[in-house]
Amino acid sequence: MAAKWETIAAAKRKALADSIPKEWIIPENIKPGDDVLDVTAWAEDTDWFSDEEKKITSTPAVELLEKLKTGELSAEVVTKAFCRRAAAAQQLTNCLTETMFDYAISTAKKLDAHLKSTGKPIGPLHGLPVSLKDNFNVKGLDSTVGFASLVNDPATYDATLVDILRDAGAVFYVKTNIPTAMMIAESVNNVFGRTLNPRNRKLTSGGSSGGESALLAFGGSVLGVGTDIGGSLRIPAACTGIYTLRPSFGRFPTLKCRAGLAGQEAVNSVNGPMSQHFSAVKLYSKTVVDSEPWLQDPKCIPIPWREVPRKEKLKIGVIWDDGIVKPLPPVTRALKETVEKLKSAGHEVVEWDTRLHAPLIAVMGKMFVADGGKSVEKLLQPTGEPFRPEMTQYQDAKEMGVYELWQLHLERTSLLKEYLDQWNACEGLDALLGPTTPYASPEHGNFKYVGYTGVFNVLDYSSTSFPTGFYADKEVDTIENPGQSALSDSCTETQKDYNPHVVHGAPISLQLTARKLEDEKVLMMTEVVLEALGIS
Amino acid sequence: MAAKWETIAAAKRKALADSIPKEWIIPENIKPGDDVLDVTAWAEDTDWFSDEEKKITSTPAVELLEKLKTGELSAEVVTKAFCRRAAAAQQLTNCLTETMFDYAISTAKKLDAHLKSTGKPIGPLHGLPVSLKDNFNVKGLDSTVGFASLVNDPATYDATLVDILRDAGAVFYVKTNIPTAMMIAESVNNVFGRTLNPRNRKLTSGGSSGGESALLAFGGSVLGVGTDIGGSLRIPAACTGIYTLRPSFGRFPTLKCRAGLAGQEAVNSVNGPMSQHFSAVKLYSKTVVDSEPWLQDPKCIPIPWREVPRKEKLKIGVIWDDGIVKPLPPVTRALKETVEKLKSAGHEVVEWDTRLHAPLIAVMGKMFVADGGKSVEKLLQPTGEPFRPEMTQYQDAKEMGVYELWQLHLERTSLLKEYLDQWNACEGLDALLGPTTPYASPEHGNFKYVGYTGVFNVLDYSSTSFPTGFYADKEVDTIENPGQSALSDSCTETQKDYNPHVVHGAPISLQLTARKLEDEKVLMMTEVVLEALGIS
Repeated sequence: MAAKWETIAAAKRKALADSIPKEWIIPENIKPGDDVLDVTAWAEDTDWFSDEEKKITSTPAVELLEKLKTGELSAEVVTKAFCRRAAAAQQLTNCLTETMFDYAISTAKKLDAHLKSTGKPIGPLHGLPVSLKDNFNVKGLDSTVGFASLVNDPATYDATLVDILRDAGAVFYVKTNIPTAMMIAESVNNVFGRTLNPRNRKLTSGGSSGGESALLAFGGSVLGVGTDIGGSLRIPAACTGIYTLRPSFGRFPTLKCRAGLAGQEAVNSVNGPMSQHFSAVKLYSKTVVDSEPWLQDPKCIPIPWREVPRKEKLKIGVIWDDGIVKPLPPVTRALKETVEKLKSAGHEVVEWDTRLHAPLIAVMGKMFVADGGKSVEKLLQPTGEPFRPEMTQYQDAKEMGVYELWQLHLERTSLLKEYLDQWNACEGLDALLGPTTPYASPEHGNFKYVGYTGVFNVLDYSSTSFPTGFYADKEVDTIENPGQSALSDSCTETQKDYNPHVVHGAPISLQLTARKLEDEKVLMMTEVVLEALGIS
Repeated sequence: MAAKWETIAAAKRKALADSIPKEWIIPENIKPGDDVLDVTAWAEDTDWFSDEEKKITSTPAVELLEKLKTGELSAEVVTKAFCRRAAAAQQLTNCLTETMFDYAISTAKKLDAHLKSTGKPIGPLHGLPVSLKDNFNVKGLDSTVGFASLVNDPATYDATLVDILRDAGAVFYVKTNIPTAMMIAESVNNVFGRTLNPRNRKLTSGGSSGGESALLAFGGSVLGVGTDIGGSLRIPAACTGIYTLRPSFGRFPTLKCRAGLAGQEAVNSVNGPMSQHFSAVKLYSKTVVDSEPWLQDPKCIPIPWREVPRKEKLKIGVIWDDGIVKPLPPVTRALKETVEKLKSAGHEVVEWDTRLHAPLIAVMGKMFVADGGKSVEKLLQPTGEPFRPEMTQYQDAKEMGVYELWQLHLERTSLLKEYLDQWNACEGLDALLGPTTPYASPEHGNFKYVGYTGVFNVLDYSSTSFPTGFYADKEVDTIENPGQSALSDSCTETQKDYNPHVVHGAPISLQLTARKLEDEKVLMMTEVVLEALGIS
């Protein structure tokens, strides 16, 4: 007999599958087989999407909004196109957890009627379909974050951010897959299973916002919202070659969301936008802050959106490695190329000493399991759900007493000060540039090291991840003797896991980081860097 | 034989006494006896202070600075005047823990030389003596926060705030007394003993910044810096009838100070200015924020000083009581009178429902002892120092596990949201006005309830405490049947402890509170309220 959690999970998966209208089920004779790795190419080629659908779903959000606000495109047509494409994404990459297609279409119709009757859009996101990570509460829908025990426990309220986006005119239509408790760097859990990378289904789409990244990379969304406590926005963005901003804590509201480690405040989870288009990341960020979220979420900071003037010559510190895990060859190559292009464009590039990264990452690791894994265990226990093999550190953890946690806070504060001093000592430093992940994107099960992103969660610095326009190349991105020149056991493992033949063609992303709460500045600087890369 | 802690404490007290130059010891034939309660009156009358000293030490900081910056007054003369008056304050109220008179005078001379040679003041606080609470680290001096085990453990670095104030031109000359761990609402500890209120030595000067308040009220300082985690700026300010701002966390740097409960971050300690003159509070606040402390302290928020335009008509919610402890008659009378004057001046006054105060205060209490009192115990243990009787809750506490703390965080966040919603629901609300303490100032040992201030520490709202110009009056401020109409056991105790004859003449202060991080606004509004009271 199946265990309780298995029965619940199977029923939930069936309900999800059944929520897709029959006419949106890809016929077996058209559906790409498991051997088709790049389903984004399939989506471009297939006739199963109409030309109009393809056009709409490949238009940047900012352009779509222009058309939506003038009525050139109806919200209904746009919404239907994204619903159908998201349904396809689910069938090909298993990226969804919840659908709300009928709700979305009826919302779109109301927005169309509003525009028609008033001549005015309802807000800056008028009629734009926006996808949400599973943990954003939407009334009437589950937010299981991958736990069987949270299936059939629909939210009775909307997350604060959901309210804000809805008021701005967003149309919600799907929620997207996550790893259990959102604490694995790939999107896999016991309820929904594993999300695949639509650019190469042998690779992970990353995590924890990996349902989002898969959906966005497939074209099933032009603007999605994820969260990030150790890299959960930046990792999936990097794995799929899309854009994201991990803001500092307090800019975007986090209230009334399902947390992975509820009540954990030593490293604060944040949320942020993800998109194939950088312009959407900017538009979203300004829209959310302009809504004055500090009047709704007591943890938000009353800092309005402060545009910063463009700086033509940046001083950038480069993170070649963090002293723990060397980036794999594709990433180092992309970083070198990017640095060369930045120098050519007249920017100043200096080496960045990463000696503080190891202790910062160690502190982060301790903070996540300070409750002895109880928060996770209490959500597994009711249905007999087992710990995922990726989460042994939660299973093995011993609960700290509060005194010990206070000492850990002190250690963290001291490291934050050292990092700040290091930044100040590098006079005129604008940003740090380095890997988002040591991989381009690894094969399923191989995303094991989150230090490159996690360090900036502890620091709470503003970071973006952006695709460089470079791709992994099996011909040049090879390692002669894996492990031989490794920095640590993790580094050895990373090198041994690396298979250039499978990773071949994966987009390579980098991470740009500004000081704490310099969200506007990191966006400005990302644009400057993209221009140096010839991307704009 | 004396216990280890007693021997250490006695030696420390002797060293402190010996640090006062002989010529600054008040001769016994002049020194007011223990029966003289108001030593501020003595200070005004005595010839032991020269007219020049009296004039300097009674001039508001802002005016002194005008004279210091133009060279009309030398920093040396001003500093000497405050050193001598502070020495007297120590002899009459036991308000100091450290002196640095020689350092102060030599610093002052350097500032004078700088002004003379460059024609320019060194910064906005050029030559102004600024007193510091004991926990602000100054290189070479102890910061014992009242623990014998921390005696003879001089700081090897300056607090970040100390650096900032020094760079602005401040002259440090004394550090001031505190309660043990800064966690009692009166300033008493086993090393330095008890600080007395210079306006009435039978009353407490409050705590934990009660050395500051005593010194300032006596005229031994025109600008002091204290800290506040549950009321520690506002309580002593109220007990002595002076001004303070408790800013929201992140505006003023807290780095490198001695903490009472090191590493405790659920309710953040903040620091702020105290003065007999409101103008000094404003000047200080702008000066500190203008120094961009976020570039030095990783916990500071990059919000520049944002002047808010004066609002002529305020909407103010009145806190008559918090449902736990009714304010004593003097406070309620001052509040009523103030409300009447506000109404007369055209402000809108509404009643404020305090039902959320009790759960917020309960959460705060739990957070302070979440470590089971270990932090305090570990500082008592090395010298065998006993727990102070006021700190039984730390002695009796059981350490929480981190899981339980996380649940407490969730409870707190939920209450913060409820409070925010309540504020929003009161459309157009600018501020809350209520008691700073339920007492005017109580007799020593009777300050037992910190709920009126503590609630805004949990909320992290910006608050001022200001004197109303009203004073306790034994004729009118009486309770017929103490305890009869009490709200709680605490309320009964408060009423029974109250002795209108002793409290007679004590200044009565009130607390004005704005939203989180509305520090500029609460200062602007305090000014508007003071004008309605005829104080400006």
